[in-house]
Amino acid sequence: MILTSKNNPLIKETASLKDKKGRKELGLFLVEGRKMAVECQKSNFTVERVFVAESYTGENPFSEERTVCVSDDVFRFLSDEKTPQGILCRVRIPDTTLLAPKGRCLLLDGVADPGNMGTILRTANAAGYDRVYLTNDCADPFSPKSVRASMSGVFFTEICRGDRAEILSLMDGFPIVIADMGGVDVFSFEPPKAFALVIGNEANGVSDEVKKASAHVVKIPMRSTQESLNAAVSAGIIMYVLQKGQVE
Amino acid sequence: MILTSKNNPLIKETASLKDKKGRKELGLFLVEGRKMAVECQKSNFTVERVFVAESYTGENPFSEERTVCVSDDVFRFLSDEKTPQGILCRVRIPDTTLLAPKGRCLLLDGVADPGNMGTILRTANAAGYDRVYLTNDCADPFSPKSVRASMSGVFFTEICRGDRAEILSLMDGFPIVIADMGGVDVFSFEPPKAFALVIGNEANGVSDEVKKASAHVVKIPMRSTQESLNAAVSAGIIMYVLQKGQVE
Repeated sequence: MILTSKNNPLIKETASLKDKKGRKELGLFLVEGRKMAVECQKSNFTVERVFVAESYTGENPFSEERTVCVSDDVFRFLSDEKTPQGILCRVRIPDTTLLAPKGRCLLLDGVADPGNMGTILRTANAAGYDRVYLTNDCADPFSPKSVRASMSGVFFTEICRGDRAEILSLMDGFPIVIADMGGVDVFSFEPPKAFALVIGNEANGVSDEVKKASAHVVKIPMRSTQESLNAAVSAGIIMYVLQKGQVE
Repeated sequence: MILTSKNNPLIKETASLKDKKGRKELGLFLVEGRKMAVECQKSNFTVERVFVAESYTGENPFSEERTVCVSDDVFRFLSDEKTPQGILCRVRIPDTTLLAPKGRCLLLDGVADPGNMGTILRTANAAGYDRVYLTNDCADPFSPKSVRASMSGVFFTEICRGDRAEILSLMDGFPIVIADMGGVDVFSFEPPKAFALVIGNEANGVSDEVKKASAHVVKIPMRSTQESLNAAVSAGIIMYVLQKGQVE
């Protein structure tokens, strides 16, 4: 059977997951594209249902029972892509309640751009930062744009979301390292074994609350004609330099 | 006098600079926003004219003779921003003919996304890579999206554009370092004093032509659950790690 109507309740409900409100109400998010579907299948995430466009001839790593075939027109209605590949999963949002910090953590302090959010999760996973804390004013890591930019990083990092104050009280005694222009050169800094690296908001940097709680401040050296770097680029450089390329 | 018509020849011509065709025909590009206008004024770029929206009350670093006041409606027509600040410059595209490589160079081999292009120029300037070579199939560094992402990096890096084969023949004997998964860990690599670092296309990586001409291959170590990093993030990490944070 092929679903051909945008008024079908399942289709309407699934389309609502493109928006934050829909994701929050249903506790589900969307994962689009062949490669992402394959990676999602390898992860611990629960894929509820898979939508496949009528004309899709690529791989579908999920069982027939979970697969729903839809017309190309309905698929375009569900898709967030300009040129949809034809496969899209409805996935359960994992538990993101706060856990105590351990090892190398990342704390995103108001990172607002969904592309930066996803790109940072991608790098965090590659670099072996297991736990990523997000303050409530961060971009939603489960938005289509963030999921796409994460290139499956969203499946393999442990995401904890909460109030800034709650996160900080949980990190009491745990060394916090912030990236800020007034700090020491990150290339000569010796980090503690376990720490939380903070990346601040794109326009305003690290919040005063988090600054006050920090033990160390590091900076990336820059030529005077450039004031700052892109947040995802800074995050990538500091994550890797702090651990000297040791990803495990 | 305030220009209020979108049919005014100067307005029509300026709006055409949002497209590659218009930029090529006129040899001009657009720089938008207060901060970018101020940085552009500090650079060696030639600002031909500045458009200021009727309601704009911010800084204008250029003389009255060069300034054209336009209605807010006309300004929105010229602007590439969702929420325009109200200042936009028409700037001469600099000479981008090929020069011989020297010092630390960057070679962008088919980098196709304008956001990545601008972000890489921003990082190149911050990190002290003076000369940036672009193959002809790269995104236009003078598009509004690239200029915005470069955060003035486009004003302070020396951009050379040309055919891949021409660039390679110019670099004959000059050490080329490529980023590719089969390489040695960039954290243990000792680069030569002068070199050209290659960043490849987002989907296909470094081209075969450039691969053949390379002297060294480096990689960023990654955990197995992540296949690759964003091109601008990789570029940032490798640029900084190769020079151990020495930006001058």
